[in-house]
Amino acid sequence: MNTLGNKLKVTVFGQSHAPAIGCVIDGLPAGFAPDMARVSAFMARRAPGQNAWSTPRKESDAPEVLSGIVDGKTCGAPVAMVIHNSDQHSGDYSGLRRTPRPSHADYAALVKYGDSYDVRGGGQFSGRLTAPLCFAGGLAIQLLEEKGITLAAHIGQIEAVFDDVPDFARIAREDLEALPGKPFPVFSDEAGERMRRAIEAARQERDSVGGMIRCFVLGLPAGVGEPMFGGVENRLAGALFGIPAVRGVSFGTGFAAAGMRGSAHNDPFVMENGAVRTRTNHAGGVLGGITSGMPLVVNVAVKPTPSISRPQDTVDLEAAENAPLTIHGRHDPCIVPRAVPVVEAVTALTILDMLLEH
Amino acid sequence: MNTLGNKLKVTVFGQSHAPAIGCVIDGLPAGFAPDMARVSAFMARRAPGQNAWSTPRKESDAPEVLSGIVDGKTCGAPVAMVIHNSDQHSGDYSGLRRTPRPSHADYAALVKYGDSYDVRGGGQFSGRLTAPLCFAGGLAIQLLEEKGITLAAHIGQIEAVFDDVPDFARIAREDLEALPGKPFPVFSDEAGERMRRAIEAARQERDSVGGMIRCFVLGLPAGVGEPMFGGVENRLAGALFGIPAVRGVSFGTGFAAAGMRGSAHNDPFVMENGAVRTRTNHAGGVLGGITSGMPLVVNVAVKPTPSISRPQDTVDLEAAENAPLTIHGRHDPCIVPRAVPVVEAVTALTILDMLLEH
Amino acid sequence: MNTLGNKLKVTVFGQSHAPAIGCVIDGLPAGFAPDMARVSAFMARRAPGQNAWSTPRKESDAPEVLSGIVDGKTCGAPVAMVIHNSDQHSGDYSGLRRTPRPSHADYAALVKYGDSYDVRGGGQFSGRLTAPLCFAGGLAIQLLEEKGITLAAHIGQIEAVFDDVPDFARIAREDLEALPGKPFPVFSDEAGERMRRAIEAARQERDSVGGMIRCFVLGLPAGVGEPMFGGVENRLAGALFGIPAVRGVSFGTGFAAAGMRGSAHNDPFVMENGAVRTRTNHAGGVLGGITSGMPLVVNVAVKPTPSISRPQDTVDLEAAENAPLTIHGRHDPCIVPRAVPVVEAVTALTILDMLLEH
Amino acid sequence: MNTLGNKLKVTVFGQSHAPAIGCVIDGLPAGFAPDMARVSAFMARRAPGQNAWSTPRKESDAPEVLSGIVDGKTCGAPVAMVIHNSDQHSGDYSGLRRTPRPSHADYAALVKYGDSYDVRGGGQFSGRLTAPLCFAGGLAIQLLEEKGITLAAHIGQIEAVFDDVPDFARIAREDLEALPGKPFPVFSDEAGERMRRAIEAARQERDSVGGMIRCFVLGLPAGVGEPMFGGVENRLAGALFGIPAVRGVSFGTGFAAAGMRGSAHNDPFVMENGAVRTRTNHAGGVLGGITSGMPLVVNVAVKPTPSISRPQDTVDLEAAENAPLTIHGRHDPCIVPRAVPVVEAVTALTILDMLLEH
Repeated sequence: MNTLGNKLKVTVFGQSHAPAIGCVIDGLPAGFAPDMARVSAFMARRAPGQNAWSTPRKESDAPEVLSGIVDGKTCGAPVAMVIHNSDQHSGDYSGLRRTPRPSHADYAALVKYGDSYDVRGGGQFSGRLTAPLCFAGGLAIQLLEEKGITLAAHIGQIEAVFDDVPDFARIAREDLEALPGKPFPVFSDEAGERMRRAIEAARQERDSVGGMIRCFVLGLPAGVGEPMFGGVENRLAGALFGIPAVRGVSFGTGFAAAGMRGSAHNDPFVMENGAVRTRTNHAGGVLGGITSGMPLVVNVAVKPTPSISRPQDTVDLEAAENAPLTIHGRHDPCIVPRAVPVVEAVTALTILDMLLEH
Repeated sequence: MNTLGNKLKVTVFGQSHAPAIGCVIDGLPAGFAPDMARVSAFMARRAPGQNAWSTPRKESDAPEVLSGIVDGKTCGAPVAMVIHNSDQHSGDYSGLRRTPRPSHADYAALVKYGDSYDVRGGGQFSGRLTAPLCFAGGLAIQLLEEKGITLAAHIGQIEAVFDDVPDFARIAREDLEALPGKPFPVFSDEAGERMRRAIEAARQERDSVGGMIRCFVLGLPAGVGEPMFGGVENRLAGALFGIPAVRGVSFGTGFAAAGMRGSAHNDPFVMENGAVRTRTNHAGGVLGGITSGMPLVVNVAVKPTPSISRPQDTVDLEAAENAPLTIHGRHDPCIVPRAVPVVEAVTALTILDMLLEH
Repeated sequence: MNTLGNKLKVTVFGQSHAPAIGCVIDGLPAGFAPDMARVSAFMARRAPGQNAWSTPRKESDAPEVLSGIVDGKTCGAPVAMVIHNSDQHSGDYSGLRRTPRPSHADYAALVKYGDSYDVRGGGQFSGRLTAPLCFAGGLAIQLLEEKGITLAAHIGQIEAVFDDVPDFARIAREDLEALPGKPFPVFSDEAGERMRRAIEAARQERDSVGGMIRCFVLGLPAGVGEPMFGGVENRLAGALFGIPAVRGVSFGTGFAAAGMRGSAHNDPFVMENGAVRTRTNHAGGVLGGITSGMPLVVNVAVKPTPSISRPQDTVDLEAAENAPLTIHGRHDPCIVPRAVPVVEAVTALTILDMLLEH
Repeated sequence: MNTLGNKLKVTVFGQSHAPAIGCVIDGLPAGFAPDMARVSAFMARRAPGQNAWSTPRKESDAPEVLSGIVDGKTCGAPVAMVIHNSDQHSGDYSGLRRTPRPSHADYAALVKYGDSYDVRGGGQFSGRLTAPLCFAGGLAIQLLEEKGITLAAHIGQIEAVFDDVPDFARIAREDLEALPGKPFPVFSDEAGERMRRAIEAARQERDSVGGMIRCFVLGLPAGVGEPMFGGVENRLAGALFGIPAVRGVSFGTGFAAAGMRGSAHNDPFVMENGAVRTRTNHAGGVLGGITSGMPLVVNVAVKPTPSISRPQDTVDLEAAENAPLTIHGRHDPCIVPRAVPVVEAVTALTILDMLLEH
């Protein structure tokens, strides 16, 4: 349900307008001294209100650690963290129980939970719940680095604009390391500029746009993952679909493989400096669920923000009739940039979990 | 690992050249009287050697039930089933331990399991292991039907040929019911004919082609699924990536959502005959991980068969040097048609599991 | 690890001297309106400092609900609760890292977690961590009551003093309902008085005593539980051993069955008012892991408090030599009375979980 | 349900009178070459018909390995094993659906599964299902030995006869190693002789007797186990109650701790040859769920065989009235001797699983 992982378990709690949101992280190795400033910086990449293409709402996302860290080091007990909610305008959402917002979880949740469902701000389905995931993921990324593993994501697509796609078989560690520092994490800053313009155009037209995030993991040893339902793809996809608005997950060449011939898609093995590698990496680093030692490449499709300020059609559940809907308030015309660290966080948590099980 | 599900658990075992393959199905409701002829017919759709576009190997896939069914009815104990292997030519695979086949699991498995890994016929990673899944899925589909749920898949794409895409909001039950009876399950038989030609062309060029399978589930009530990591997408993707050669999983409009505007992608709610529905169904029947009551639509990308008879490049692991490889024997130039019932089986098992937990 | 349950999951966090302890409860049905005054009263039974036989330490156990309850009702989101720690004297525990206390978890935890282990006040192994369990259990007991199920425990034994044992086949609901209101929950108040004297005698001799708690569940339908490893006994024992100081768990006649003949231990079936019952209930309400419809009876052995103020022998881990140890501070000479609601809580959570899965 | 373990999973299937029983073992390390003759010898200790105190029924328990072992070594794929049933007299059990046997699972199972429940020979609740557990446990014991761990159990009690209890802090490896070779595994052969007489006396009086099995594990490192619900006790108890007829599980001094003072029960730490040990071992090798490095001691109470040939009282479920019952056929007057290897098997599987997770 709200818990991710086997040996490293992250349990997320809270609703958009509850007193707090947070998480409990069970299974971190004892003696780990996280750099909390880096965790905060990581979380800040997800926070709203920072630039033109994100909502002007301000969230005070200062995480308060309640347990599990003593004198700056993990002690083996679960790490519990809370973020107190403050900037809430519950009044904005009063009608949602009657007129569910198209392509939000409101309606499905009302059917599932009944009248008691907390509809304010999207309740437990709010994107705000990804803040605790980023806290946990910010820790996981540091633990992966200690194992020589680099993990970063770029924005692969915004609407019709695509970033440069690197050669999956030869991804430079420096290029990955540069991504998180960019306000708009892309390989081609020119493509990034066009992406920003696409977002701004949608915003001006009171609309929103979707996109695609591609996450890379360098330095994973070969042989990680279990066969069949315990594969790297199973575990990552099972986790990544927990991020709101994700509509698809693929690996390496992904859905494009459907249009290819085997002679083009197969990755020939080659010896390089005494190591077995593949000349291409359409597989995205996973064969039969198990890592091949090549860079892991996972693609995540993100739908356009469903909250748009244009008038929309919906139903009045009480009157049982069609009804118009206008969503007020400010919303991101595109959540893809803020979703980048969330994809990194969930990927990092899942990979670390698999390494701890290995 | 090799177990799927929570309340309905399917554990698969076997290797391509082991004495047998099979599965144990725990959690089927007692008193269920499956139509075994239909299960066999379902399994036959996956079996090889049946037509021009599949390998001429013959498998005797006759399932032998060892437990859990008494006088034709489930008794509450786990249903164990075995299929004895017979038509094996172990000699064909002798060199694979030295020269792993590109884009197969051989290499990753050799790293993971060491010299003891059973490389013959792809070992535990062989597509043959999907036969037990089809047995289990064939039972699950009948149980879903008893609940008024129809589940069927079509071939959405083979290489550059696409089947007609139905309106996801208005899928006719009859159209779905017609699919499993077709030798080539497509809505447009003309597209199917072109797909067959694409497969045949690849075969003649000693190559292979990939494709895409789209599975539909009609009749699911709204409100099924859990939030965050327990959503319908998480569960289905976590299961479907267990099928060999699957490279991507998406829902509804899937990766195309990345290129859309919110105004186009949002699904407006409408009242129809007293029921809440959506006018379009880009969501593919799932909102926030929970079913909306609309048809469930899941897309599965399948890579081209990695076994092609053209010469390929690989490495000689013993000599630690590059080496040429020619794969002998007959292999499907396209596994997509045989993968259709496997996708149906895994989808059915996962959906039934979620309904039993509901 | 620190999570209990399948469909109803309780994750506990905190250490004795962390800023806070608490829990996250995932899977409570939506729309449940708990009586929080009763939850507090339930938790108060576990709290220290209330009477002569418990430690004079005061804990402010006021639970703060952070999420999952809106307008007094569960909304479907996880219920997160924290208790802030205040009355800590961290100085008391400074030497424990060198000289582990006999029969405490200190030593095992130091080996497991290394120097980073939070040894203060028993860290994450402190009995204080049972306070969140009581919060969660207090909710579960109310949900069980809504299903017509009564659950209560008595102190069956303190050192050499035994409470009256009721006829397991004919436990009166009123007798059970009276137990939680008693400061010393026993059927025979005279036995309770002797138990109190045994505890006081141990206290005066700077020693401690153990005991046994027996928990009853009335109103469970027959047929609950899964075979083999999913039985009621498996689930309850797997949970109850999570309570600190528990050394044994048995059902019905328990270990005494080892000394009995079948003719005496077998429970004959009888018809009573049209219902199938058993004349005796040595089974304690469970046959083959599945409830029989008779009262559930589970016995829990609790060891004497390991913290005693007499001088003890231990080792100095740093000097690698034997060393004397005197434990200062005040500790319960018997934790059994305070453990009664904890046993009730864990039993209630497990039974409710199994009913939600049923 | 019918699956035990996390990283090492054993799934058991079959009913007493199904075509076969068996198990699937997932997670065994690859490259392990089991001594199958020893596994057979281990299973033979459980098999019936071998001596005066067990039923004269003969079972052909020859295990057939279907997968996972190639050329005598595990290959990483799940090991599937079946035992074909042959010596069945289904006619013996025809009335059981109407008149459930006291203290058997028949009635509870009929309520749970309805008319479809396979009542023949106890169905899936038959003690025969422990044969596959012994196969799996026989493998696990060998893997533990490779890690320097010795595991063996003695019969601690039969009715009123008790075996000698060793000093839990100083158990000799040779004494343990001698146990499995004895037809009646006790430390005191004189006590064993009296136990045999107690069993024979019960048999002659058409009755049965219960007993207690105590299992020891030597050589476990300190620090194994997880806190709270992931402790060694939780895991072992959660597994051992899966053995039919088990009524209680305790550790070290167990329920006797309830009658002790802390000054007597506490285990003082001492340095011995540079290693930390405890002078006594009332804890049975576990503190706070985590191993202390001392011998692990677990006690398992087994009820008297419920099948006795004396007339008993039960109900006629069809007529809804009381009815007499006489159980025909031959049954063990005491199942404790045959349960010893089962307790060893389940303990070995659980400990190995925890070590693989460690």
